[in-house]
Amino acid sequence: MNVTKRPDTTQNGTGSAESLYGLIEQLYPICRSITGDGLRATLGIIRQRIPITISEIPTGTKVFDWRVPKEWNIRDAWIKNSRGEKVVDFDDSNLHVLNYSMPVDQKISFNDLNDHLYSDPAHPQVIPYRTSYYKEQWGFCLSHLQRSGLDVNDTYHVFIDSTLTTGSMSLGEYVIKGESEEEVLISSHVCHPSLCNDNLSGVSLAVHLAQYLAQKKQRYTYRFLFMPGTIGAITWLALNQKNSHKIKHGLVLSCLGDEGSMTYKQSRRGDTEIDQITKYVLSSAGDSFDVRPFKPVGYDERQYCSPGINLPVGCLMRTPFGEFPEYHTSADNLSFVKQEALEDSFAKLKQIMHLIEGNVRYINCNPMCEPNLGKHGLYSLTGGKAQSEVNQQAVLWVLNYSDGEHSLLDIAELSGYSFEKIKQAAKALENVRLLRGISQA
Amino acid sequence: MNVTKRPDTTQNGTGSAESLYGLIEQLYPICRSITGDGLRATLGIIRQRIPITISEIPTGTKVFDWRVPKEWNIRDAWIKNSRGEKVVDFDDSNLHVLNYSMPVDQKISFNDLNDHLYSDPAHPQVIPYRTSYYKEQWGFCLSHLQRSGLDVNDTYHVFIDSTLTTGSMSLGEYVIKGESEEEVLISSHVCHPSLCNDNLSGVSLAVHLAQYLAQKKQRYTYRFLFMPGTIGAITWLALNQKNSHKIKHGLVLSCLGDEGSMTYKQSRRGDTEIDQITKYVLSSAGDSFDVRPFKPVGYDERQYCSPGINLPVGCLMRTPFGEFPEYHTSADNLSFVKQEALEDSFAKLKQIMHLIEGNVRYINCNPMCEPNLGKHGLYSLTGGKAQSEVNQQAVLWVLNYSDGEHSLLDIAELSGYSFEKIKQAAKALENVRLLRGISQA
Amino acid sequence: MNVTKRPDTTQNGTGSAESLYGLIEQLYPICRSITGDGLRATLGIIRQRIPITISEIPTGTKVFDWRVPKEWNIRDAWIKNSRGEKVVDFDDSNLHVLNYSMPVDQKISFNDLNDHLYSDPAHPQVIPYRTSYYKEQWGFCLSHLQRSGLDVNDTYHVFIDSTLTTGSMSLGEYVIKGESEEEVLISSHVCHPSLCNDNLSGVSLAVHLAQYLAQKKQRYTYRFLFMPGTIGAITWLALNQKNSHKIKHGLVLSCLGDEGSMTYKQSRRGDTEIDQITKYVLSSAGDSFDVRPFKPVGYDERQYCSPGINLPVGCLMRTPFGEFPEYHTSADNLSFVKQEALEDSFAKLKQIMHLIEGNVRYINCNPMCEPNLGKHGLYSLTGGKAQSEVNQQAVLWVLNYSDGEHSLLDIAELSGYSFEKIKQAAKALENVRLLRGISQA
Repeated sequence: MNVTKRPDTTQNGTGSAESLYGLIEQLYPICRSITGDGLRATLGIIRQRIPITISEIPTGTKVFDWRVPKEWNIRDAWIKNSRGEKVVDFDDSNLHVLNYSMPVDQKISFNDLNDHLYSDPAHPQVIPYRTSYYKEQWGFCLSHLQRSGLDVNDTYHVFIDSTLTTGSMSLGEYVIKGESEEEVLISSHVCHPSLCNDNLSGVSLAVHLAQYLAQKKQRYTYRFLFMPGTIGAITWLALNQKNSHKIKHGLVLSCLGDEGSMTYKQSRRGDTEIDQITKYVLSSAGDSFDVRPFKPVGYDERQYCSPGINLPVGCLMRTPFGEFPEYHTSADNLSFVKQEALEDSFAKLKQIMHLIEGNVRYINCNPMCEPNLGKHGLYSLTGGKAQSEVNQQAVLWVLNYSDGEHSLLDIAELSGYSFEKIKQAAKALENVRLLRGISQA
Repeated sequence: MNVTKRPDTTQNGTGSAESLYGLIEQLYPICRSITGDGLRATLGIIRQRIPITISEIPTGTKVFDWRVPKEWNIRDAWIKNSRGEKVVDFDDSNLHVLNYSMPVDQKISFNDLNDHLYSDPAHPQVIPYRTSYYKEQWGFCLSHLQRSGLDVNDTYHVFIDSTLTTGSMSLGEYVIKGESEEEVLISSHVCHPSLCNDNLSGVSLAVHLAQYLAQKKQRYTYRFLFMPGTIGAITWLALNQKNSHKIKHGLVLSCLGDEGSMTYKQSRRGDTEIDQITKYVLSSAGDSFDVRPFKPVGYDERQYCSPGINLPVGCLMRTPFGEFPEYHTSADNLSFVKQEALEDSFAKLKQIMHLIEGNVRYINCNPMCEPNLGKHGLYSLTGGKAQSEVNQQAVLWVLNYSDGEHSLLDIAELSGYSFEKIKQAAKALENVRLLRGISQA
Repeated sequence: MNVTKRPDTTQNGTGSAESLYGLIEQLYPICRSITGDGLRATLGIIRQRIPITISEIPTGTKVFDWRVPKEWNIRDAWIKNSRGEKVVDFDDSNLHVLNYSMPVDQKISFNDLNDHLYSDPAHPQVIPYRTSYYKEQWGFCLSHLQRSGLDVNDTYHVFIDSTLTTGSMSLGEYVIKGESEEEVLISSHVCHPSLCNDNLSGVSLAVHLAQYLAQKKQRYTYRFLFMPGTIGAITWLALNQKNSHKIKHGLVLSCLGDEGSMTYKQSRRGDTEIDQITKYVLSSAGDSFDVRPFKPVGYDERQYCSPGINLPVGCLMRTPFGEFPEYHTSADNLSFVKQEALEDSFAKLKQIMHLIEGNVRYINCNPMCEPNLGKHGLYSLTGGKAQSEVNQQAVLWVLNYSDGEHSLLDIAELSGYSFEKIKQAAKALENVRLLRGISQA
């Protein structure tokens, strides 16, 4: 088995696997797919950092309208010209093989070969990423320049040493138990071969977020899923129908390492807490950002937000999929993602989690008129001056709107005070028992 | 009986009664009113084209707060000066008689005559259209110029050969049975004498729309009403109380032949399907248009949208009533309406009907995650490339939003895809049983 | 007892206690607080104009989270330097004493005195208004200029002849019985000493409004409250829990005499009838104005709009509290409030009451189609001309929207007709029994 390749890399991170960039660097060479040993190797590296459980779902397992496909593995692939020179070589880039190609070993004319070649005239210098999961065929992907250089009169030896057999599909899952059984879902797809932004950036951020959250007890239970796109999410949802209702907030992470500004694609419902929180965090950061409505095209939010499931799951990205020219090409490489961009994404992601944890609803225990704040030690006792202590006004906002309908973030948005100031005020009021938290609905 | 007059016409249509303009030309000379032989003659001409049923509602019939009035008929009318010269003549224009005038035959001074004259100093060259349905009186309408030319010292012979007697009011109705008992109502008033835009344009469009829809089986049942304004609609609603709930969408047609841009006056509810569809069609056409909220002033939508009835009926016009200077004057003549404008109105009206017919709600039969579109023959099988086939994304939009709450037009508006593309996608999904239509609520 | 002081006044009103300004002038010299004889003297002057009931609530009475405080009275206060000269004198301004100061009579160094002095360096020429209701201490307030002139090496004799004893808190209340038990609440605080805009302006307007409304029978019952801020409203609400649900609309009146434009702070609910009416009146007046959302900082609307009470009570002001530099200083004096501004506030307040009284909901008794208005004497009988009589269109608007859901003000806002025209139309329809009023929900 030969799943790792030498990275053709321009170092821009620390090079350490401990950094966001370093983990991408480590995972980049592996030839992943929706099944197979490349996927297993990837999950294995993740498991060195966080204790994920790896499930193997057998080929043929029925999952809603689908079946888990046969397992695909590949060892080598090349095209040789009649002089025996490798003109296309899997060892140069695992994108050269149409992902899920059937094995082949034959000599054919250029014309016959040509039907099995994939290139993109619009981006002639890059190898496009192509797959054929559900139609058995073989093919090679190459740059349009490379294709143009082939001799149309030559005969070629095509060789793909792959297998497509009954086996299994691997799913990685890590649960950090919190005080509550209610869950926050973090989902990233791990099926793409040597492509960095889509989606090793999302994988690396998920791994580091899991490490960060595991450091202390959280209010919510956090569930991290590392799975092949589409069929992985469908399989997980099919096998976890009884428990998916516990998911109260969720994010799909993808394309988080490029230098573009942040983009948030809302959940199908569009008005859920994760939507509100993510918009608030992106808006508070002061950087430019974009919020988009849900659409049923994209990543695994398509499954989480299918009409029969309809979970509150959005998708966090920088430049959205398909909107950067490097998308699904060999140019989405280690040069394309930047440590600074990854760190910025990570900071915002941690802030989103911080708000999810802190966005409690309280009930004012003394809702008939204002309480005597002085008696409870919460009032500047020489009154009559203009109220200049922000915290004290925040206290009044929290008291007035802690009616069970407004969360702390609702109150922050209503009042104009920052979430932190509102949370401080709520804590002070909770300490003197003027407020009590209520559990989520 | 002398109900037809020679038209003072500038030909701008084909002149054929088969054209939109031609039917207006044919109907224009008739002296119509809310009852009488002019109205019957009009319905008779309509019946030559579409098989309307004509009901005769007897004078005195109680209809809600009203009674069907006495029947009015007129044969001749003029004013002669003392030299025996006709200075005002019904033969020149049937607008010269105050509609519903009592008979008169007497010689009177100018001063006594003057109390019975109607002219409009603001538009001195045109004959105003005036009626007196519910007060028994007689009168003549004339241009202010004509009135100024009368000799104030002369004596005049006034003659109106009319009758106001117990009789009946005629209502024309044509029903095209569809697959469903649910109805689309098309209503136009037929009570105005020689006035073209208001409302022979609406009448001609309704007749041609009925001919068009009758050509093939429709999903909805279509009901066309040709009735006197106000009292006709009130009478029909009073006599059809048990069945009017079947009306799911409706349009009053009026003022559709002038060269102004389209105007849609919304139903009282303002958010019904006919409102959504009409706005979508006008907006998609790319021409300028205006959408206005409901107001209880206008045509028979006032009755359909009275608070106890409140049907989803809007009003489709070009320049709204009262907003063109020719309105309710002799200048609303055959020169004022244009074949091109009528054809443009007709094209949009047909498009509205097309959307009414096609705007189904579907249920996704496989709502848990996306279905395996490849298995159902609906997926481009070599994945991984940017999804460029619009139809395939339309398929995903239809699947995701076919939750029973969204119609195809809702999905078109959400997605930005045209209604046609969305409908195509829905048909494809219905064909492979991934979607099933649901009946209207 | 020495509660009245000579006013240091610049006359700008009539000087008559009958005028809005005159009553302010009469009340200005009194040293008020949240309890005590100054408050009683104030209520006594109000009772000379309107028959308020004065309740005395004993010290220690439990009211929600609070207790009625001890009663404070003051007779004299000064600071003398070592030469026996009064350098600060209560006789010059009752703001010189920290409101609710404990008695003191001792000679102390400047340094010890300095801890008990309150001045505002940002506004060096004015005496700030300070209170210490809930912490027992003594203090003097003075201009920063005056403070700077004190000899830091001198010894001072401080003297405050006050008492803080078990007693009672006085509340003034006046109810004008209307046809309905449903109430309109007018609340103004009467606890500030010599400060005019905040809030003798509100007090004077409330008194004059009560006189105005008492002149004839009203539809609503009107309840006027003259109470100390915060603790007064809390006490009244605590003692009247069973009846406060009768309050259907309410306004807190404050800061209504300055030359700024009008400001309306909405009720917590934000969409109540008092909110709609006040915005309509301010908007119709044509002057600039500001409408602000509720916030839990301000006057007694904080209590009326606390989450457990949540009454439809807004706050009517000109320049809002804290937004004029004279706020809570000796500069909020008789020169700062203007008769013209008070009269303008009064006109708008009366107009608000006029709309509250007139904003009925009607039911159309003939909701199936339009009624035959001619039969009922409400139609211009020669039809066919453009409807130019505004009143007749208002009639159609009232008929169409009198469905029990729309008030007359709703119809005015929908139609664009003034409230008066809509009300006239409704009266005409009610007279011929086409409309009947419905009682409030």
